[in-house]
Amino acid sequence: MKKGNVLIGQSGGPTAVINASLYGLIEAAREVEAFGRIYGMEFAIEGFMEKRLIDLRQQALPDLENLQGLMHTPGSALGSSRYKLKEEDLPRIRELLEEFGIRYLFLIGGNDTMDTIHRVENYCRESGYELTGIGVPKTVDNDLYGTDHTPGFASAARYIALSVQQAGRLADDMQRVDRFAVFQTVGREAGWLAAASALAKKNPVDAPHLVFFPERPLNREKVLTAVKDCVAKIGWCYIVVGEGCLWENGTPVSAAREKDGFANTEFGAMGGASAALSLHSLIREETGYRGEFQITESLPMCAVDRVSEIDREEACRCGRKAVELAVKGRTGVMVTMKRVSAGPSDPYRVEYSTAPLGDVAVRAKPMPEHFINPEGNFPTPECLDYLRPLVGELPVYTNLRRTE
Amino acid sequence: MKKGNVLIGQSGGPTAVINASLYGLIEAAREVEAFGRIYGMEFAIEGFMEKRLIDLRQQALPDLENLQGLMHTPGSALGSSRYKLKEEDLPRIRELLEEFGIRYLFLIGGNDTMDTIHRVENYCRESGYELTGIGVPKTVDNDLYGTDHTPGFASAARYIALSVQQAGRLADDMQRVDRFAVFQTVGREAGWLAAASALAKKNPVDAPHLVFFPERPLNREKVLTAVKDCVAKIGWCYIVVGEGCLWENGTPVSAAREKDGFANTEFGAMGGASAALSLHSLIREETGYRGEFQITESLPMCAVDRVSEIDREEACRCGRKAVELAVKGRTGVMVTMKRVSAGPSDPYRVEYSTAPLGDVAVRAKPMPEHFINPEGNFPTPECLDYLRPLVGELPVYTNLRRTE
Repeated sequence: MKKGNVLIGQSGGPTAVINASLYGLIEAAREVEAFGRIYGMEFAIEGFMEKRLIDLRQQALPDLENLQGLMHTPGSALGSSRYKLKEEDLPRIRELLEEFGIRYLFLIGGNDTMDTIHRVENYCRESGYELTGIGVPKTVDNDLYGTDHTPGFASAARYIALSVQQAGRLADDMQRVDRFAVFQTVGREAGWLAAASALAKKNPVDAPHLVFFPERPLNREKVLTAVKDCVAKIGWCYIVVGEGCLWENGTPVSAAREKDGFANTEFGAMGGASAALSLHSLIREETGYRGEFQITESLPMCAVDRVSEIDREEACRCGRKAVELAVKGRTGVMVTMKRVSAGPSDPYRVEYSTAPLGDVAVRAKPMPEHFINPEGNFPTPECLDYLRPLVGELPVYTNLRRTE
Repeated sequence: MKKGNVLIGQSGGPTAVINASLYGLIEAAREVEAFGRIYGMEFAIEGFMEKRLIDLRQQALPDLENLQGLMHTPGSALGSSRYKLKEEDLPRIRELLEEFGIRYLFLIGGNDTMDTIHRVENYCRESGYELTGIGVPKTVDNDLYGTDHTPGFASAARYIALSVQQAGRLADDMQRVDRFAVFQTVGREAGWLAAASALAKKNPVDAPHLVFFPERPLNREKVLTAVKDCVAKIGWCYIVVGEGCLWENGTPVSAAREKDGFANTEFGAMGGASAALSLHSLIREETGYRGEFQITESLPMCAVDRVSEIDREEACRCGRKAVELAVKGRTGVMVTMKRVSAGPSDPYRVEYSTAPLGDVAVRAKPMPEHFINPEGNFPTPECLDYLRPLVGELPVYTNLRRTE
C-alpha cells in the first residue's frame, strides 16, 4: 500500500462514544507501517483549512494510558465543527493535503461529514491526487443510512431510558403534587431516541405513558385526551416528546402558539422555544394539572458515565475497521454494522461492512412504520426488541407501594 | 422504653438518597424490641389521614435483599406529598395515631416536614398522648438549618458537577458552532447547587465560567459583559443559573420580559418559564451568539446511579440515628451532622447531633456571604473547600487539544 501521512477528524455534534472511535482509529493507525505522521484536525475540516493540526504520534501525552482515557472522555477531543464544504474550498483542501503529505483521510461523523469525505475524495481523484477516504459513523439520532444503528445512539438512548426510569419513579411517588412531566429528547427528523425511553417501562403503570415522534404528527385533542385518561387511570402521566415533533397542520410543536404572542420555529432549545415547553403549557392550561418539563438537550451526548458498553466497544471497533479498510485498499466508503442475530431471543451480534459515502450523504433512516403504534403515541414491541440489546439491561428497583 | 407501634413517612420532594434514609430507619427499627408494627405512610401525612398504611414488617418482599434495594432506588418509595398541615387536622391525626397504637413517629423531609412533626408531637403532648417524634433531614437545596449539610444535597450536587463537567467538554469542542450554554439548577432560595457546579472546573478555561445565585441579584449589563468577555477570551461561555435568581429590580430572571408578551412569575419549569430560558433569550438577542439551555429540573433528585457515596452512607446513618435517639428517649428533634474536620487538608469527618424541630421549621440556611465572590458570579475557594468532600472526586479526562 501507498506510504503517506494520515489525517483524522471529528465532525458534527459529539456522542458519548465518539472519542472511543477516535481511540480505535489512532490505535489501529499507529500499527500500520505505511502510515507516516498521524495528524488530528482541530475543529474538523474548518480547522484543517486553517492548518490547525495536532501530531497524534508526537502528542505530548505522558503515557499511553492517557490516550486510552479517550474511551471515557466526553466531547469530540479534536474539536468539531458543522462547516458545510463549499465548492471553492476543494482546491485549497487538496493543496493542504499535498503540503502535509496526507494520503489517508478518516472522518468520524454523520451524513454531512460523509458528504465532505465523498467530495474531497472525488475532487482529489479527478485532479489526479491519490487519496483514500473512509468514514466512521456517529450520531445520537440513529438516522444514518446503510447501518443497523449508529455508534453514539445507544449511549444517548441509555441516558434517556435511565433518566425516564428514574424520573418516572419520582413522578409516581410525587403524584399527589405533580400530575405530569414532559421529557424532551433531541432528534429533529427521527424519533429513535424518543422511542428508546420506552425501555424504562417494565410494568404497565411505569413511565413513559406517551411517546411522541417527529415521524407522526400530533393532534391536540388526542394528546389532551390521552393525558387526561392516563391521569384518571393511574394518577399521573409521563410524556416523552421528540424535539422535532409536528402538529397535524405542520406547525412544529416547539413553536409556541400565536396567542402567547411569541412564535419561534427554530427547533429545540437553540431557538429559545421547545416542544416540551409548548406541550407543558398546553397541558397545564387545558387541564389545570401541575407538572414539570425536562430538557436535557446535549447532556445525553456527553454522559460518558452512562454509556452503553456495547456502544462504546462498537464505536471503538468502527474506528479500527476504518483503518483495516484503508489497509485493504478500500476508499469512498463508510463503516457500517449489520445485525446478524436471527431474532430477539438470539444473542445480539453484528458484522461490520461498508456503505458508499455518496449514498450515506444523501439518504436518511427514519423509523420504519411498524416501529410506531397506530395511535402514534408509543413504540411497538418490535421496536423495543430492536432497541433492547443496544441499550443493555436497566436497573431493577425496589417497590414498597405496589406488589406487581 | 414505652412499647408501641412505629410510623415512618417521606415528605416533600425526593432526593437520590431519601430511600437510603428510609432503609436505615426500617433496618434500625426492626432491631428495637419495644417496637411493635412498623408502618409506612403512603403519600406522607396526607395518605396517613386516609389510613393508607404499609406494614413494613409484613411487607410482601421476597427477601431482605429487596429492602436493601432501597439504597439504590429513586423516588420516595413510600410515596410523598407536600400537604401543609391545618390546625383542624391535628385531632384527626391524634385519633389515628391512637387507633393504630403508634407511639413513634419518624418523618424524612425538609423544614415543612419538621414543622409537621413538631406540631403533631406538641399537640399530642398537650392532649395527653405520649408520642415520640423525630425528624430525618433531606433536601437537595441544602438550606436546612442546624446541620452542616443535608442528605440528598451532595448527590444532586454531584449530578450537576458531572453534567457541567461533561457538557463543558462538549461546549469547548463545539465552540465553532455554539458560543454559550445555560444550565439551570433547582434551588429557589439558596444557590448551593449552582455553586457545586464549579467543582467541574479544574483549569481556568473549564466550565463553568459564570455561576449565578438566588442570593445575589443579577445586573443585565454586567451579565452580558461577562459573557461577551468570556467568549472573546476563550471562545465560548458556560453559565450556571439557580432557578430562583432575581434581577436587581427584584423581578425573577425566570419571568420573561414584558416585551415578549408573556410574564410568569412562578419559578422553575413548573410555571412554563425558567431562568435558563430567559437568560438564553437575553444573551442570544443581545449578542447574536448561538447557544443552548439545559433544564434538568428534578432529574438530579432521582439519579441513583450518580450519587455521592458519602451522601448515600450519611443518609442511611441519619435514618439509623433517628431510631437511636428515640431509643434514648429523645423527642422533638431532627438528626443533624456536624463537620469535625479541622480544615480542608484534614480528612472529612462528621459527628451526628440534633436540632430542635421548632428551630428547623422556621429557619433556613442561605449560603454565607463569604462563599460567593464579590462580583456575585462564582463561588469562592472556601465554598469549594466546603463542597469538595461531599461531592467526591470527579473524573479526569484526556486532553488532545490543550496541554495544561
